Amino acid sequence: MATGFSSRALVRSVPERIGDRVVLRGWVYRLRILATTTFVIVRDCTGEVQCVAASARLRDKALKLDDTVEILGRVRSDTRARLGCEVDIEELRVLNAAGHKLPFNSSADLSEVGVEARLEYRPLAARSDSVGDAFRVQAALLASFREFLTARHFTEIVTSKIVASGTEGGTNLFPIEYFDRVAYLAQSPQFYKEHGVAAFERVFETGHVYRAEPHASSRHLTEYYSLDLEIGFIDGPEDVIELERELLTYMFAEINERHAALLARHGRPPLPSLEHAPVWEFGECLERLRSAHGTKHLRDDLDPEAERLLCALAESEHGVAAVFVLGFPLSNRPFYTAPRGSAGAAQSFDLLFGGLEITTGGQRLHERAQLEAALRGRGLDPDDFASHLKMFELGMPPHGGLAIGLERLTAQVMGLANVRDATLYPRDRYRVTP
Amino acid sequence: MATGFSSRALVRSVPERIGDRVVLRGWVYRLRILATTTFVIVRDCTGEVQCVAASARLRDKALKLDDTVEILGRVRSDTRARLGCEVDIEELRVLNAAGHKLPFNSSADLSEVGVEARLEYRPLAARSDSVGDAFRVQAALLASFREFLTARHFTEIVTSKIVASGTEGGTNLFPIEYFDRVAYLAQSPQFYKEHGVAAFERVFETGHVYRAEPHASSRHLTEYYSLDLEIGFIDGPEDVIELERELLTYMFAEINERHAALLARHGRPPLPSLEHAPVWEFGECLERLRSAHGTKHLRDDLDPEAERLLCALAESEHGVAAVFVLGFPLSNRPFYTAPRGSAGAAQSFDLLFGGLEITTGGQRLHERAQLEAALRGRGLDPDDFASHLKMFELGMPPHGGLAIGLERLTAQVMGLANVRDATLYPRDRYRVTP
Repeated sequence: MATGFSSRALVRSVPERIGDRVVLRGWVYRLRILATTTFVIVRDCTGEVQCVAASARLRDKALKLDDTVEILGRVRSDTRARLGCEVDIEELRVLNAAGHKLPFNSSADLSEVGVEARLEYRPLAARSDSVGDAFRVQAALLASFREFLTARHFTEIVTSKIVASGTEGGTNLFPIEYFDRVAYLAQSPQFYKEHGVAAFERVFETGHVYRAEPHASSRHLTEYYSLDLEIGFIDGPEDVIELERELLTYMFAEINERHAALLARHGRPPLPSLEHAPVWEFGECLERLRSAHGTKHLRDDLDPEAERLLCALAESEHGVAAVFVLGFPLSNRPFYTAPRGSAGAAQSFDLLFGGLEITTGGQRLHERAQLEAALRGRGLDPDDFASHLKMFELGMPPHGGLAIGLERLTAQVMGLANVRDATLYPRDRYRVTP
Repeated sequence: MATGFSSRALVRSVPERIGDRVVLRGWVYRLRILATTTFVIVRDCTGEVQCVAASARLRDKALKLDDTVEILGRVRSDTRARLGCEVDIEELRVLNAAGHKLPFNSSADLSEVGVEARLEYRPLAARSDSVGDAFRVQAALLASFREFLTARHFTEIVTSKIVASGTEGGTNLFPIEYFDRVAYLAQSPQFYKEHGVAAFERVFETGHVYRAEPHASSRHLTEYYSLDLEIGFIDGPEDVIELERELLTYMFAEINERHAALLARHGRPPLPSLEHAPVWEFGECLERLRSAHGTKHLRDDLDPEAERLLCALAESEHGVAAVFVLGFPLSNRPFYTAPRGSAGAAQSFDLLFGGLEITTGGQRLHERAQLEAALRGRGLDPDDFASHLKMFELGMPPHGGLAIGLERLTAQVMGLANVRDATLYPRDRYRVTP
């Protein structure tokens, strides 16, 4: 029997092949060497299966956990096994041995391994379910975000991350030596996705954004992955909120369906529908915080404590720990934000979920004259935004949109306290490796 | 009748609503003002529909092409119309007027507009099918790439684009001022996707890569979008080639199905299956070029002319203008490339498609000792790659992978001569705006 790649059986297919000889390739995930019999649990990207041989036959292989191996064996029905079968090993070949001193093994529970070691040995940590599952969920969040929007006639766009200036006037930018000039890493695809509305009406982009913010908190990264969308022909931010409500409800239902076993092994309850998540005005939120918790220090924005308290209030009143906060003070929002009434509020919202802000969105100004006035009102010079403002004369619909931080969303879905555990290779003030 | 966003009808749904009053929102795509009757073709993200009113009733709206409008009207069956119906306008409201002097209109054929104007007025150009269709195809290529791989048990990963050093020893990197140190924009996710194999066995990433190459040719960009995949437990580069053959055949069939009308309006034939695309050894390619075309100057690599000629040879022999060239000289490939035999060839391939290289791939070295020897052989110091080499002791399977340039692939699919026409916001030596 040839043992090549093309004849290899994925673990998932083994239960359908009882009685057959199969070729498996994978990692030694667990290993139990008894006097007469050796049990090798082999893991590949589709699951784990127990393989069995007489210990004497495997002795010269010096098998260790996390070695990569090829096994030729015969599938035998075994009702005690999780898959309903085992594999009797006929031949075993070590493809590439793991080192003799690993900091941990992929079958270990890594919750007691520090975050630094989990990052330093990323591939080994991510091979374990305790760390790797967050990234499987992240991939499914990405896929379902794109699926939902594509079905709603959104076009995926790819926009440049090398820009001549910032979208908000030039703070917290990383400069790039771009041949003989300076350029910057984009803080957001904001301008490009607004231009995208003028082109395609509905657009989304999934990509990195960059913030040169010196703090290194459990919720901030200098490079994060943003799920951006922008939609034309809306009446107001409520249309964007409704879209996000349906979007996240879809995404969460997909995670519940595709990853039920994964959520269960992390002790996570199924993700909620956001159908009943309330929309509270910003002023109303301050009122609620004051009357329920005596919070008095907030004026123009919420803080992490307020985000937690508001989610708890939403949960007790509406059964879901999520709330859309609408109508933030305009002074705290970017120049392109549309005003909400004339009392200084913005058509701008945050979504707080599980105690953390995971989205900022809103309606944008769509007329050139409004944008010029807004820039001047903030002491910015419209001439510095000339190439952007020009796009508002090409037939720009009323529009709005939002951005979801993928790492934060993943952390909330998985119950992780630090966004670094939802980032394969996090970047912060002090970290640029691995 | 309310005319809000939630009651708005997308053009695609209009034929199902004959006899109903509907609210449309979109752009004035075409406009024909006769003495008594005015015809307004309204376009939204789902299509175009003809709307009709007495000219006198619309006169004070001063309608122009590319204005954004809302129309309240009644759907009337009309067998002469493309959709089988028209809309009798009852009310029309201009949502945001286009400027009075546009460089072109979105309904124009932009093939006679220069590439610079198409880039400068990107949203307006992309609103036209002549420019925008390439991006609709691009989005479908992205979606089908991810679908195929997800169904084959690949995990999508997101890796950092801010790195401490290059993957190939430090040339052509863009430096970033990263707080008080220098970092660089990643040239490739190569190292991270190899680490990804050690974690998840099969990974893909779609994201930007950066090359500080000063030339500004029709096929090079300083920032491009790379479709990367890496797969573990292979036997050789032929397994990667077979995977790409199936991957692209799937992607092309999806484009043929989802975008048949689009391809037709650009005069593009359906995309081919790559089932019969040949695999030719590099030496065999030089031989073929010599005997068919007298080409004698090539030694270590192909050039653009050779890529065109080889595709033409493949087309005449196998009916498809695509060829996998395998076994490039090792000296021209990165240090991590596995050798093919002992005569200086590499387990490395390119895919030439329609006359252009759109993929580089191959099998990689997977043992630490091999990598250290390869680095030393190129005068590089293994200590400079310590954090990368460490990952090869954690249980690294034999592996390989490939990268497809999304802009090049899009250009080949659409028959575009310049990759800039397949890039919303291209970056090159001289361009960082818009």
